[in-house]
Amino acid sequence: LDRLLYALSLLGVIVSACSGALTAGRRKLDWLGVLAIATATAIGGGTLRDVLLGRYPIFWIRDPNYIVASLAAAVGTLLVTRFGKPPRMALLIADALGLAFFTISGAQVTESLHSPALVVVLMGAITGAAGGVLRDVLSGETPLLFREGELYGTAAIAGAGIYLLAEQLGWPTSRAGLLGMAAIAIIRFAAILWRIRLPIFHIADED
Amino acid sequence: LDRLLYALSLLGVIVSACSGALTAGRRKLDWLGVLAIATATAIGGGTLRDVLLGRYPIFWIRDPNYIVASLAAAVGTLLVTRFGKPPRMALLIADALGLAFFTISGAQVTESLHSPALVVVLMGAITGAAGGVLRDVLSGETPLLFREGELYGTAAIAGAGIYLLAEQLGWPTSRAGLLGMAAIAIIRFAAILWRIRLPIFHIADED
Amino acid sequence: LDRLLYALSLLGVIVSACSGALTAGRRKLDWLGVLAIATATAIGGGTLRDVLLGRYPIFWIRDPNYIVASLAAAVGTLLVTRFGKPPRMALLIADALGLAFFTISGAQVTESLHSPALVVVLMGAITGAAGGVLRDVLSGETPLLFREGELYGTAAIAGAGIYLLAEQLGWPTSRAGLLGMAAIAIIRFAAILWRIRLPIFHIADED
Repeated sequence: LDRLLYALSLLGVIVSACSGALTAGRRKLDWLGVLAIATATAIGGGTLRDVLLGRYPIFWIRDPNYIVASLAAAVGTLLVTRFGKPPRMALLIADALGLAFFTISGAQVTESLHSPALVVVLMGAITGAAGGVLRDVLSGETPLLFREGELYGTAAIAGAGIYLLAEQLGWPTSRAGLLGMAAIAIIRFAAILWRIRLPIFHIADED
Repeated sequence: LDRLLYALSLLGVIVSACSGALTAGRRKLDWLGVLAIATATAIGGGTLRDVLLGRYPIFWIRDPNYIVASLAAAVGTLLVTRFGKPPRMALLIADALGLAFFTISGAQVTESLHSPALVVVLMGAITGAAGGVLRDVLSGETPLLFREGELYGTAAIAGAGIYLLAEQLGWPTSRAGLLGMAAIAIIRFAAILWRIRLPIFHIADED
Repeated sequence: LDRLLYALSLLGVIVSACSGALTAGRRKLDWLGVLAIATATAIGGGTLRDVLLGRYPIFWIRDPNYIVASLAAAVGTLLVTRFGKPPRMALLIADALGLAFFTISGAQVTESLHSPALVVVLMGAITGAAGGVLRDVLSGETPLLFREGELYGTAAIAGAGIYLLAEQLGWPTSRAGLLGMAAIAIIRFAAILWRIRLPIFHIADED
């Protein structure tokens, strides 16, 4: 199981690095800049989690394989997009899986420190979503997080909540985790495929 | 006194959450996104303070009441704005009080670690202002901090400085703290009501 | 040597504070806001380095001279630009030197914690570049980092890599450090003077 989790976490890093490289590619950056933004996207969420929890050394200093994986993924993205259009739908699916894995793994790490439920959900969502926010801020774009209809942060919060709920109902951690990941991926897929949206909260400006 | 301080800190969190919810509401986010940005606004400043000082566990992991309070405030804001316009002036006043409390409490925590005066002032201002910066960055707006005529960061720095000065002059900590908070609130009120401004520093662009 | 390094690090802080003050000055902020952004620019990179490495107390809490130096530099910039145009080329040169020093010093601190090579390069680049990113985000500008043709982050990564390579080849740390700094400064100068650029990586948008 530990090996599976490690493989999944490397997969999450790889997928996030691809999405970071593609976002940076749309902003006309030089290729070393693309590598840097891809890496920031891939390790940003876990880094924020470790810093907020005071877990030192943070995960990619303890195990630089995460950086190697994200650099390799970014270089791969550079090469693939040289010879053809990036597979947009594949990327969206991969991005949803990355969000799913990072969120649940962030929640599990926080849980292992005996934090209260609310903190676990919040920290899971932060772990899942922070990499994408960092990617957008460094690329000079407004963050996609919580944007109209995207259900990005929403999916992370809901999935972490479902994971905790399942655990409270007596499910084993591993199954509850898979359920939470599935929930996150499904919510994102639904948002992408059928344009399902949460109600928008809108205040008319007074001035 | 400790209970009063705790109540004030929860009040600061509540007020900041309302301001975060209203800002997010102007950006057409879904309601879970509004909750998330409200929470980030409410706990952002204190989180940055704890991380910079290495105070682990950070305050909202130690006491999740802060998250409960900010979520409740955000839900309340969602409900109130459903049935009427938000009370703009009340919000500005509340926001000024939140800045006042966060800044002085940040300064006091830093002081308790025997940091030098400059660090105390700086950390107070960071605690007070970082939540609002996070709110603006996550909402995709340019940060209001230090913006023309707002006197936002300025009020925080001045108030923390006045607090330290009063202490140096022999005032007890509690009274010096109240003086500092009053100074911050008054400077912000003055900036809002009478449009009092600091001189703008402007460099003409050469190109 | 230790004194030289300390002097260089104060110089780096001063130069970064000037660049922060000038950037803020273009955004019509009040003068206390200019001081704050100048300080954030000057200490941002080293702060992020210390937080990511868990080195507490962080450098400017341990030694507030860094804050004094950056405030003095910002006040100096305010006064000088009052009486004349800022010396643009001098500033660009100084900025390149600041990037060079921060990057190599960040790499050296990370190295002293027995981190693997990739982490050392990455942390060096983060230390060098984060202050400028913070400056741009706080000023409401899109970050210059990795921007088309600037070779900013690129220079930092290349210089930290060259520093490590020289060490691997048996050079003493001090000389390898000077070589790395020289490489960073030269790459930036080349980018500015002769508009040398890395290939741009650009993906045509599908939609």
